[in-house]
Amino acid sequence: MEYRKLKDQDQDGSSAPQDLESLRVKPVDLTKWKLKSAVTIALTVLTSSQAILIVWSKRAGKYEYSVTTANFSVEALKCAISLAALARIWSNEGVTEDNRLSAKLDEVIVYPIPAFLYLIKNLLQYYIFAYVDAPGYQILKNFNIISTGILYRIILKRKLSEIQWAAFIILCAGCTTAQLNPKSDSVLQTPFQGWVMAIVMALLSGFAGVYTEAIMKKRPARNINVQNFWMYVFGMAFNAVAILVQDFDAVMNKGFFHGYSFITVLMIFNHALSGIAVSMVMKYADNIVKVYSTSVAMLLTAVVSVFLFGFHLSLAFFLGSTVVSVAVYLHSIGKVR
Amino acid sequence: MEYRKLKDQDQDGSSAPQDLESLRVKPVDLTKWKLKSAVTIALTVLTSSQAILIVWSKRAGKYEYSVTTANFSVEALKCAISLAALARIWSNEGVTEDNRLSAKLDEVIVYPIPAFLYLIKNLLQYYIFAYVDAPGYQILKNFNIISTGILYRIILKRKLSEIQWAAFIILCAGCTTAQLNPKSDSVLQTPFQGWVMAIVMALLSGFAGVYTEAIMKKRPARNINVQNFWMYVFGMAFNAVAILVQDFDAVMNKGFFHGYSFITVLMIFNHALSGIAVSMVMKYADNIVKVYSTSVAMLLTAVVSVFLFGFHLSLAFFLGSTVVSVAVYLHSIGKVR
Repeated sequence: MEYRKLKDQDQDGSSAPQDLESLRVKPVDLTKWKLKSAVTIALTVLTSSQAILIVWSKRAGKYEYSVTTANFSVEALKCAISLAALARIWSNEGVTEDNRLSAKLDEVIVYPIPAFLYLIKNLLQYYIFAYVDAPGYQILKNFNIISTGILYRIILKRKLSEIQWAAFIILCAGCTTAQLNPKSDSVLQTPFQGWVMAIVMALLSGFAGVYTEAIMKKRPARNINVQNFWMYVFGMAFNAVAILVQDFDAVMNKGFFHGYSFITVLMIFNHALSGIAVSMVMKYADNIVKVYSTSVAMLLTAVVSVFLFGFHLSLAFFLGSTVVSVAVYLHSIGKVR
Repeated sequence: MEYRKLKDQDQDGSSAPQDLESLRVKPVDLTKWKLKSAVTIALTVLTSSQAILIVWSKRAGKYEYSVTTANFSVEALKCAISLAALARIWSNEGVTEDNRLSAKLDEVIVYPIPAFLYLIKNLLQYYIFAYVDAPGYQILKNFNIISTGILYRIILKRKLSEIQWAAFIILCAGCTTAQLNPKSDSVLQTPFQGWVMAIVMALLSGFAGVYTEAIMKKRPARNINVQNFWMYVFGMAFNAVAILVQDFDAVMNKGFFHGYSFITVLMIFNHALSGIAVSMVMKYADNIVKVYSTSVAMLLTAVVSVFLFGFHLSLAFFLGSTVVSVAVYLHSIGKVR
């Protein structure tokens, strides 16, 4: 009812005389809230369908294509989508200070940093498997949730209420619980180096996320497609190097798109759209929303997999899902006033 | 500091002139809060040591004594302790309307009801094992938490804030998570009748608890030892019937205290003190506090068992404990204002 009222007032411009100020503020908040919700839902759906596509492609057989060329294609596609969006904006609104593509060095110089942090993290990933197995690593990855919360507080200086902190801790516990399987206890035998590496990786990943948010929000008026363009250009560059180092011979002999199937193309599109959704969440929402979104996506993936692939859900999954749901609820009611 | 200040003011009777009203109210709140905390801590410690005594007695060998005579002894001991406490009060304060033992029928008639509800629940316990195994039943018993919360709201008409409800749901999920073991998933295969029985038992147990609280609080001025006396007299009666039905021959042939060891006596004392602590929590705190207290006791028992019996803690235990701790925190900060 209230929403309807506000929307009408927004459209016809009429407003009650008694409380002009509050009525002027609310429609703006509402638009912001709608944008934030839309990008969050998009990210959740894209992330969960991403995981489902991975399961699907694994069932269809092993990877025939080179992963480095696929990653490069994702960055190139994101770049193309950003440019297409910009072209439309230029034809509608003309080129302005905020949407022009050219940028000064001090604006552009920060964009490679998150990509560089992710690169280090991905390199470490090869070494951590000397200390933990893959399911154990899945469990340890949940440190990301805590590291993101802490770095969000320290670096972005944004506050969470005590209820939101409590929600964040149980979000981490709930996600881990949902992923438990009878062999999970082996993670408790992880040697000290394994714990240290897992924590370092969580910090790198959290720092990359928080740094991206800082970049996107530093220039609020700057068009997001320009910001994305620069980020993805550096993404292409990093992945071009990866192709040269890892798959140069294979690409030269068999061709760039060797082994690509319909599902490979689907996955590339999905990754590209997820990447853009992450950028939008960073600009219009924040890292905390991203963490909740990907956590809920993880649960959605499992539920959808029951219907698609006949997976069985464990009791731990139900318990973890309950805790994650309560965490989402507490985060939403626990806003700092 | 503040506590110290209030206490001093309470003792010497002097009070600052500017805010007389608030200073008069606070010491009473403080005494109530101290009493509530003391009985809660006592219940937590007694409940966890109770579980440890059970593990200890199991390790020492199987039960040699008859369980029904032990239960009767517990009720008799509680009765004796209540009478001893009353005797001291009578000699100090004299017999008053609030501490006299004799009571009208309408006061006494309600006391057998909780004992009767527990009796039905314990009878059902024999039948539920046709549908679930013992570890599965341990998991299903956590329904008690939810049923107590709902009946507390409906019957006692006491309100929990939305944060406290959220805390209560994750308390249930956290306790269950902490008890998970690799075979727990079998509980998901419980047939429909098993679920129904588990829910009925949870409702009976929750109703008995809530009803006891209603009895204890209906006459706030009535001395708790008188209320306990009447409750335990009926407890003795019910257990006397149980001895006649189950162990009459054994008691006649071998004697009432046959097979009692030092640890049996310890367990009887522990059960008696725990029972009195429960009564005090019901009178001075409430069922919600009792649920939190026994949940924390469950975790304490596991931690102590690591040191005493070399138990191993699972990853699920750590996750569940984290969630339970957050639930306790949220319950305390989420008070209805």
